[in-house]
Amino acid sequence: MHTSSATDQPSPDVGAVDEETWRIRRTAADLERLGETESIFALGNGWVGWRGVLDEGAPCGMPGSYVNGFHERREVSHPEEGYAFPQVTDTLVSAPNAALIRLWVDDEPLDIRTGTLRRHERVLDLRAGVLRRETEWVSPGGRRVRIRSTRLVSLPRRPVAAVRYEVEALDAPVELRVCSDLLANERVPERSDDPRAASVITDPLNAEAYRTAGLDGVLVHRTERSGQRVAVAVSHLLDAPDTVTATGDCTPDRVRLTVAGRLQPGERLRLTKFAAYEWASVDGTPAGELADLVTVEADAARADGFDALLADQRATLDAAWQASDVLLDGDPELQQAIRFAIFHLIQAGRPDSNRTIPAKGLTGNGYDGHVLWDTESYVLPVLTYLAPAVARSALSWRHAHLPEARERAAELRLTGATFPWRTIGGRECSGYWPAGTAALHVNADIADAVLRYLAATDDQRFLAEAGLELLVETARLWHGFGHWSDTGAFHLHGVTGPDEYAALVDDNVFTNLMARRNLRGAADAAERHPDLAGRLGVEPAEIAGWRAAADAVFIPYDRARGVHQQAAGFTEQPEWDFANTGEDDYPLLLHYPYLELYRKQVVKQADLVLAMQLCPGEFTAEEKARNLAYYEARTVRDSSLSASPQAVLAAEVGHLDLAYDLFAESVSQDLADLGDKTADGLHLASLAGSWLALVQGFGGLRDDRGVLSFDPRLPRRIDRLAFSLRWRGHRLRVTLTPAEARYELPDAGPDATVEVWHHGERLQVTGATPLTRPMPPVPDPGPEPHSPPGRRPARRSAG
Amino acid sequence: MHTSSATDQPSPDVGAVDEETWRIRRTAADLERLGETESIFALGNGWVGWRGVLDEGAPCGMPGSYVNGFHERREVSHPEEGYAFPQVTDTLVSAPNAALIRLWVDDEPLDIRTGTLRRHERVLDLRAGVLRRETEWVSPGGRRVRIRSTRLVSLPRRPVAAVRYEVEALDAPVELRVCSDLLANERVPERSDDPRAASVITDPLNAEAYRTAGLDGVLVHRTERSGQRVAVAVSHLLDAPDTVTATGDCTPDRVRLTVAGRLQPGERLRLTKFAAYEWASVDGTPAGELADLVTVEADAARADGFDALLADQRATLDAAWQASDVLLDGDPELQQAIRFAIFHLIQAGRPDSNRTIPAKGLTGNGYDGHVLWDTESYVLPVLTYLAPAVARSALSWRHAHLPEARERAAELRLTGATFPWRTIGGRECSGYWPAGTAALHVNADIADAVLRYLAATDDQRFLAEAGLELLVETARLWHGFGHWSDTGAFHLHGVTGPDEYAALVDDNVFTNLMARRNLRGAADAAERHPDLAGRLGVEPAEIAGWRAAADAVFIPYDRARGVHQQAAGFTEQPEWDFANTGEDDYPLLLHYPYLELYRKQVVKQADLVLAMQLCPGEFTAEEKARNLAYYEARTVRDSSLSASPQAVLAAEVGHLDLAYDLFAESVSQDLADLGDKTADGLHLASLAGSWLALVQGFGGLRDDRGVLSFDPRLPRRIDRLAFSLRWRGHRLRVTLTPAEARYELPDAGPDATVEVWHHGERLQVTGATPLTRPMPPVPDPGPEPHSPPGRRPARRSAG
Repeated sequence: MHTSSATDQPSPDVGAVDEETWRIRRTAADLERLGETESIFALGNGWVGWRGVLDEGAPCGMPGSYVNGFHERREVSHPEEGYAFPQVTDTLVSAPNAALIRLWVDDEPLDIRTGTLRRHERVLDLRAGVLRRETEWVSPGGRRVRIRSTRLVSLPRRPVAAVRYEVEALDAPVELRVCSDLLANERVPERSDDPRAASVITDPLNAEAYRTAGLDGVLVHRTERSGQRVAVAVSHLLDAPDTVTATGDCTPDRVRLTVAGRLQPGERLRLTKFAAYEWASVDGTPAGELADLVTVEADAARADGFDALLADQRATLDAAWQASDVLLDGDPELQQAIRFAIFHLIQAGRPDSNRTIPAKGLTGNGYDGHVLWDTESYVLPVLTYLAPAVARSALSWRHAHLPEARERAAELRLTGATFPWRTIGGRECSGYWPAGTAALHVNADIADAVLRYLAATDDQRFLAEAGLELLVETARLWHGFGHWSDTGAFHLHGVTGPDEYAALVDDNVFTNLMARRNLRGAADAAERHPDLAGRLGVEPAEIAGWRAAADAVFIPYDRARGVHQQAAGFTEQPEWDFANTGEDDYPLLLHYPYLELYRKQVVKQADLVLAMQLCPGEFTAEEKARNLAYYEARTVRDSSLSASPQAVLAAEVGHLDLAYDLFAESVSQDLADLGDKTADGLHLASLAGSWLALVQGFGGLRDDRGVLSFDPRLPRRIDRLAFSLRWRGHRLRVTLTPAEARYELPDAGPDATVEVWHHGERLQVTGATPLTRPMPPVPDPGPEPHSPPGRRPARRSAG
Repeated sequence: MHTSSATDQPSPDVGAVDEETWRIRRTAADLERLGETESIFALGNGWVGWRGVLDEGAPCGMPGSYVNGFHERREVSHPEEGYAFPQVTDTLVSAPNAALIRLWVDDEPLDIRTGTLRRHERVLDLRAGVLRRETEWVSPGGRRVRIRSTRLVSLPRRPVAAVRYEVEALDAPVELRVCSDLLANERVPERSDDPRAASVITDPLNAEAYRTAGLDGVLVHRTERSGQRVAVAVSHLLDAPDTVTATGDCTPDRVRLTVAGRLQPGERLRLTKFAAYEWASVDGTPAGELADLVTVEADAARADGFDALLADQRATLDAAWQASDVLLDGDPELQQAIRFAIFHLIQAGRPDSNRTIPAKGLTGNGYDGHVLWDTESYVLPVLTYLAPAVARSALSWRHAHLPEARERAAELRLTGATFPWRTIGGRECSGYWPAGTAALHVNADIADAVLRYLAATDDQRFLAEAGLELLVETARLWHGFGHWSDTGAFHLHGVTGPDEYAALVDDNVFTNLMARRNLRGAADAAERHPDLAGRLGVEPAEIAGWRAAADAVFIPYDRARGVHQQAAGFTEQPEWDFANTGEDDYPLLLHYPYLELYRKQVVKQADLVLAMQLCPGEFTAEEKARNLAYYEARTVRDSSLSASPQAVLAAEVGHLDLAYDLFAESVSQDLADLGDKTADGLHLASLAGSWLALVQGFGGLRDDRGVLSFDPRLPRRIDRLAFSLRWRGHRLRVTLTPAEARYELPDAGPDATVEVWHHGERLQVTGATPLTRPMPPVPDPGPEPHSPPGRRPARRSAG
């Protein structure tokens, strides 16, 4: 047995390179892609989110300063109405923006598009949790100044964000004016026709209160339709020569502190702004109370000081990274990318607010800021292992919206609960029902996330308070929705699975298997907790009905071709004419009608492959290999949700190069802006999926049966892969090299024990003894599956 | 052989009753249902349509003065956009309304909601083609007047409509003021959320020219977006005591003639207004020219006089009735109803304008005034036999829009032509693609109407100019859309058939059989006219491809249940829970989501049954009986298009009572306002369908193979059924009694001959000799099929 000294920190010989893997850097050369940079540099803490817009607010791709759950409601109309079509939708809107600090140099505004930009660099520091900026600018009038700023959104302090802004005169005396704004109703540019973009509400906020006093100020606004009230306070510290004066003023939509004076060469002006954000229902906290609340928070942050915020931020992140960091030796660029991904996952949620994580987190307003199934099927399976309390918060948010889900089920004349496909406030906001309402699998996805969370944490309190009810009400949906055929099979007809290039299909395998898992999970939990179940009206007969349905779920299989059908009849649909599909025809949804996409064998995103990832025990190894090959040839990956499940299955089947290339695509989604959509916000599911690609793909983690099993196999590019999983209160550390796998509980006492399986061998890992096991050779899986022409991921696996 | 004296006129002994069958009468008791009455009393000539609003314009359900094809375009937005979703839609808007004549009696406006209504009757005279009104009204101030008016829209004179308005002082002298308006941009009330209602555009018309001179005036307006210009002229005749004066004035949106003066008891004021309507593209006829054109037309009508218009109207209708009248002895109420239906079919189209017939004709703005497949599948099959030149016009209109249909096919990445599901101007206006774009059968429906028209007329010129190209381009659509399975079957997947409670299905039998008919019809026509076909680029290989596809079209059949599947898998879908569906849950589309409707065995409207009607040779008698029983039990008739195909098949199978009750429902759709939607306009397809129910159902007409065959069988309620068909230039008259069927060519010379089949016997009917044949007994078909609970049509068959 090795007594390896491997730790969570990189080994010293790769120090300099590794340092860069903790940073994301953008310079003047990147100014072309402002919107993308703003998303990448977004800071958040699961409550407040600031897009990485330049301090001065311009040039700007899209402003954004969000508070989780704060939204406006707007009416939607349908060219042809239909029963239960949503008539209103939630739209993420910005709270007042406290990040703005504008500078005038001898009356010329700092704008990097004017004058001369001598140096411009912004760095997102993944360990410090700050965005640093350094700009050296010569004004059109010839005045040279250096601007340094540091911005953070405090991870430990929910309402707090802050920015320290410093300007230095370099060559000659300059007259400076610095305006620090808190600004409501910032203009948002109109967006494209792309169905995936957001809609714009002009001036969504109505002022209720505004005041300024000394270096402080506060704005309170409310939305017109959603009945929400938001308050933002700012509090400043000024450190500048005596020649500099500060004056405050405010209007209903703006609090401004103006700092003005003359700086000699070498002199600096430093302005630190502390902001605090809260929102509440209009019927809840009165405006004055909310204003006082944020004022106290902002003042407290100022009293503690920016350095204290920095230290707290670092400490919080140190702990988070200890739980979350992944080592990927052999590919520094993707080492950086996976850390970037994990950083944004850490930022996206909170353990203490019972809020969920939208598809874009709080990094942009893509998908109108809605939460979709991505959260439960991609993000929470990761957070369950890295930050289980955050997963619990997000699931508790679902539970808090059970009343709306029950109402929706009743409206749809279904049983149990029907959770919305898209929402912020809990009600269905999908404007296209065949890909929204019909995608009932979201309900099983929620149940699946509950089951995974419970398996990893054994959190009995959550089970009693929320988990069981979520399982029961979703099981009731499936039991009522399905029907029995003459041959005794249980069918789910007319639904839409994950693949959005199909809709209203019968017996989608993913949906059916997830429904089975939902039904059995509910039955198991109800049987284990008969008292709790009884309070929900669950009788043994109902449980028996769930089990019968689960056992009889129909799984369509094409015997002639030896593959599962994504949905009944899929393999008999016409093939897509890839030969006549040009590179510019992708994404297909922008160039072909659903009429063509739906009826043909073309797959937008992993669907059957995702079923094999999430329900691995339902397929034999041979089926997995054949299915992967069949669907790989028909999957175009027009969705960022696709690469990671494909990577996991490619790795399982043994196509490690393909798996690695798919992982690379998933983890690079935003840093390389592969879909050209990063400006709308980050693809959190893709970022989370890249962790799954590593841990489930190369780590071979399977956890669908309540135990942790690993079948690790490393791609040739990688010398070492190490990751941690939180499991029943312990941190399990897994370190993989081409030669061996090491399992340990680095933080645990000697009596702690976690059972894991390594390539079929059952191991008891204890706090006292790390275990290592050899990595078996990967059997030759045969030739790599064909991807559609031009759609194979870029080759990175060869190094 | 009988030498019966049966003619087109009723026998004298039923004179008084029969007179009433030529009239539709509404009195003060009907004022509750204004909108419905306005649709029923709509007058039109296929070019101009006036809703039957009261002369004084109020109270009013919905104003409407339409010109065929005149519409505005408006933008539509989709909550979630998709490729090729229509971004604009056509909306029927009113041309300036020339029907208005308002009356003031001693400065009190005539409003039947005020004062005392001593008598109020309006009569639509189906032979005279006029709407007569007589009102005796006592003003709130106690003045009694009698108002008589007669309104017509001239059938022979395309642009002309007229109204004669007479007011008489009854007891005492009265000061009268009569304002005869031509009014643009009349206010249209806001409508319901029902997806089948119309949208409203406020003030769609922009004034371009307006003038008045003496008793005449003209308005020219244009639409903002659709680029259409409409001109309406009015010309008056005044017949009144010398005490009465007339003055004209106008504003951009109104021409008004005010007639005022004192009438002694017994004195009358008679004002006759002649109006003329034209529209043209803004890029076509200039405003001045269009104004002159309508002025000349209105003046000419005035010069000829109202009596001449009445006489011409009568003469035109006499000829039309000779070709069209149906005798239905034994049920005077439905005798009236079928005449009402035929009257509106006569009114709906023109032979001389190459316009089509919208779903509501020009009787209302339901469905936004769009034309749908109803026209080709219900209305034209009737007009082909009653007024073939009108059918030709409507098909020529389709041909004129082939360029848009080819563009649409290219946009959808399909081959050939794809005609719009809903349109006025030729482009797709459907706002819900699963029930619009996906309903590709509209293309086969057009081809079917072409084939039926050609079979009945042998119109070689139409074939050369339009028919062949329509057949070829639609055949190309099917050939490119379908695909071949491993077993050599030709499939059409992912389409929507007639039943709107299903969508995006595979191998809808109706669509597949109609596509087969389309492909074979195109192949036959192309082979018969190789030169014409060659000019369309049709090569023998292409024709062979059409034939191969047609021969191999897949028809799903459930062997276990012994019935066809409306679409693949239909009989395996869950059954609808009729036991828990309340009376108030109909129509289901207003109470259940598509999610439930689409996946279950519930049928909105005849689909497979319509396939058996339109393609009768594709099914055996046993299959028809079994299919009818199976689908009858699942068809809720939430569409007015359903009763007539069900009637036809019920009659064929031998369930004559059920057939009669279905016929009664179809023909009463509007007169009894069965769907509560008549206010939006008449259901022309249902009215036409009632003719088909009689002629195809009880007459047993089958014409899908280019010959006329009859298998007549009379329901017990009916003593005599007689109807005419135009066939290759001759009028075939068919008279059925319980004892015998009589076939004759009443207008033809002795050498004329038409071949018909009577219950399998081939007959040569000549102008010289009517033929009679006995009616065979109807074999016992067994018990009547079950309808869903509460959904059987009302029983009328027993008399």
